[in-house]
Amino acid sequence: MVVEVTVTDTTRTRAIELDARDPLARFRERFVIDDAENIYLDGNSLGRLPKATRAQLRQAIDAWGRDLVQGWERWIDLPNQAGDVIAGLVGAAPGEVVVSDSTSVNLFKLASAALDARPGRRTIVLDANDFPTDRYILDGLAASRGLRVLGLETSLDDGVDLEHVRTALDEDVALVCLSHVAYRSGAVADLPGITAAAHSVGALTLWDLCHSAGAVPVGLGDARADLAVGCTYKHLNAGPGAPAYLYVRRDLQPLLRQPIQGWFGQREQFAMGPGYQPYDDINRFLVGTPPVLAAYAVLEGARLVSEAGIAAISEKSRALTTFGVDLVDRWLAPHGFRLASPRDPTRRGAHLTLHHPQAWQFCQAMRKAGVIADYRTPERIRLGMPSLYTRFVDVLDALGRLRRIAEQGDHLQHSTASARIT
Amino acid sequence: MVVEVTVTDTTRTRAIELDARDPLARFRERFVIDDAENIYLDGNSLGRLPKATRAQLRQAIDAWGRDLVQGWERWIDLPNQAGDVIAGLVGAAPGEVVVSDSTSVNLFKLASAALDARPGRRTIVLDANDFPTDRYILDGLAASRGLRVLGLETSLDDGVDLEHVRTALDEDVALVCLSHVAYRSGAVADLPGITAAAHSVGALTLWDLCHSAGAVPVGLGDARADLAVGCTYKHLNAGPGAPAYLYVRRDLQPLLRQPIQGWFGQREQFAMGPGYQPYDDINRFLVGTPPVLAAYAVLEGARLVSEAGIAAISEKSRALTTFGVDLVDRWLAPHGFRLASPRDPTRRGAHLTLHHPQAWQFCQAMRKAGVIADYRTPERIRLGMPSLYTRFVDVLDALGRLRRIAEQGDHLQHSTASARIT
Repeated sequence: MVVEVTVTDTTRTRAIELDARDPLARFRERFVIDDAENIYLDGNSLGRLPKATRAQLRQAIDAWGRDLVQGWERWIDLPNQAGDVIAGLVGAAPGEVVVSDSTSVNLFKLASAALDARPGRRTIVLDANDFPTDRYILDGLAASRGLRVLGLETSLDDGVDLEHVRTALDEDVALVCLSHVAYRSGAVADLPGITAAAHSVGALTLWDLCHSAGAVPVGLGDARADLAVGCTYKHLNAGPGAPAYLYVRRDLQPLLRQPIQGWFGQREQFAMGPGYQPYDDINRFLVGTPPVLAAYAVLEGARLVSEAGIAAISEKSRALTTFGVDLVDRWLAPHGFRLASPRDPTRRGAHLTLHHPQAWQFCQAMRKAGVIADYRTPERIRLGMPSLYTRFVDVLDALGRLRRIAEQGDHLQHSTASARIT
Repeated sequence: MVVEVTVTDTTRTRAIELDARDPLARFRERFVIDDAENIYLDGNSLGRLPKATRAQLRQAIDAWGRDLVQGWERWIDLPNQAGDVIAGLVGAAPGEVVVSDSTSVNLFKLASAALDARPGRRTIVLDANDFPTDRYILDGLAASRGLRVLGLETSLDDGVDLEHVRTALDEDVALVCLSHVAYRSGAVADLPGITAAAHSVGALTLWDLCHSAGAVPVGLGDARADLAVGCTYKHLNAGPGAPAYLYVRRDLQPLLRQPIQGWFGQREQFAMGPGYQPYDDINRFLVGTPPVLAAYAVLEGARLVSEAGIAAISEKSRALTTFGVDLVDRWLAPHGFRLASPRDPTRRGAHLTLHHPQAWQFCQAMRKAGVIADYRTPERIRLGMPSLYTRFVDVLDALGRLRRIAEQGDHLQHSTASARIT
């Protein structure tokens, strides 16, 4: 039993009003909420289970048992069906997105294809503070090809700056690979500006959309972005380890070479002929047999986001994080917390990050107090606020509990040694 | 309603006797059998749904909804847990197998690692008649590195011959990549002999176990095989598109370089440090976030096989296919069918393949008659007989229906144009 912090009536009244006026409020009941004793602010790590997905997965399991191999007549197009729904969420056209593999594998495939398409150029530009798997995979590709990685020392709180990227660009750059929304701060990068700048020197762009698809508008098509990858288990709510997706702009599809020449990229796949003759379309970037159950979860999750609409989702995210920033300033700044996300709401994704030297201990104390949030190095607490199921009162109560922890010193009971966390 | 062919009483009596004496007969009821009107001889393409898996998947879905991100404390070790069970099925040690990605992606990772470990050698030996994805992926790797692919022209019916492999081996060979059980004929390759021959010239071996794991003993450890990959949706019954696994012999693990340097291969993963410092163990070959739901299905499927035991499974496979060969000789040879699998039962996996110039039409007519089997180029019908749920009477009735089709010419109603099939 957690006793809520007493907050000024006006603040709670304001939260209740905002929830009452929220046009997306009705979406919360579309999710399984079996943990009502907790406040879940980690949907940007693992999204909630949509009720429709639970039903769809049960049906898909039964269909496996009943239809067996004949089920493939329906299943084989799932990666494209789900991809087309995701395309609608990221400003791409049908046929430009497909569900496949993990984000990491997709990043490898597309980065490799991009480097092959820019022979002679010897530089990859990335964010030295980007999510580890992006950096590691690009480092590996660079090492195996004798290329140079230029890691931009970006702001941990404000993300990638267009002018900073510009200074790194020249005609030796083959590829610029960045996250659209920074995993640590939630800062939104200038995707159109950076894409245009990269194109001006003939480089290709590869965007990691893990924290942006389903949370903010992406606008891949308007920006003429070249390539993108992303996961589906955060704001697309497709479940733990659900398959990822990849985007390749239509005109680039026949021009790029897939390094992992699997049989699902093969035209006339079931002729099983002697040589690899890939599709000219997005299926060229498929590899192995698609994961059917999880692809259903991706499809359902993406449909739910599509139904709500990215514009409404993004508007609510801004309102939630703005509400949160106000509470951080009033309640938490006096206890040594610093906002480690952009103050400009148009530059924020769907999470807020707080810096505190004892962030790890606070994070543990928050879990004990029923607030599920993420710790991220260095010394940060990440508070995810997915619009489809986060209420203003959740933000209020979570930050209220954090204030109480700080006031009472509850976090001091927890070890400073950070353990493995997700 | 399908009327069974009248067969000699002695043949049917024999089938019933064999089923009555079958020590694995009780395993059939461990599977969902919702298609009792059909005879399913395609479990080597997609295995049946174990009842335990259905229950486990439902629990895992609910756990996602309830535990959310905190579920990862249990989930994160699933790829290793499932890998260890599979290790026991293929003669490997715990810690030598992990569940990850698709077979195709794993083949790419391990082949790439093997080629890096044999610098200066310029030849990859494979079976020109191997499963397409294996050939395509190795072709792609060879092309990108300027290497030569030496595709052995093996027998479509009898598979790879040790002496034939020997003639291809010299000190220019970096890698020998073959299927243990041929996807087309079910012929079992001499894994220990070929591995030893490859080692004698300093080459590494990479075995595709898709049609052998869960069907026949593999003996990776006894043969000191270097590397292997395999899928889980055939004889391990893990469901459509379930993730694959990979094997790396313990002493090789720290020596090989993973080309797709994802964050799940990273030691101190959640420190999210600047440089890729991979594990020294099998986790070095992981890439992205593991697929949790499907990993549970792999674990349950592999456990069920483990409970039955590979020795008993393999013994029954031989009995089923031997019983089938006898019927083919007596009933189908007069109609132009030819056995396109080895006659020696010790050289057969868990499927029988029949050649007939009208195989495609027969395959369609069989489906209409409730016998689900696979067509494979050129002109072959593949009859899968997984021991855990195939009965001798199933083999009897399937081949009886095929005989009736041939006698009545029912197959002539079907188009000769082969469409996309799985």
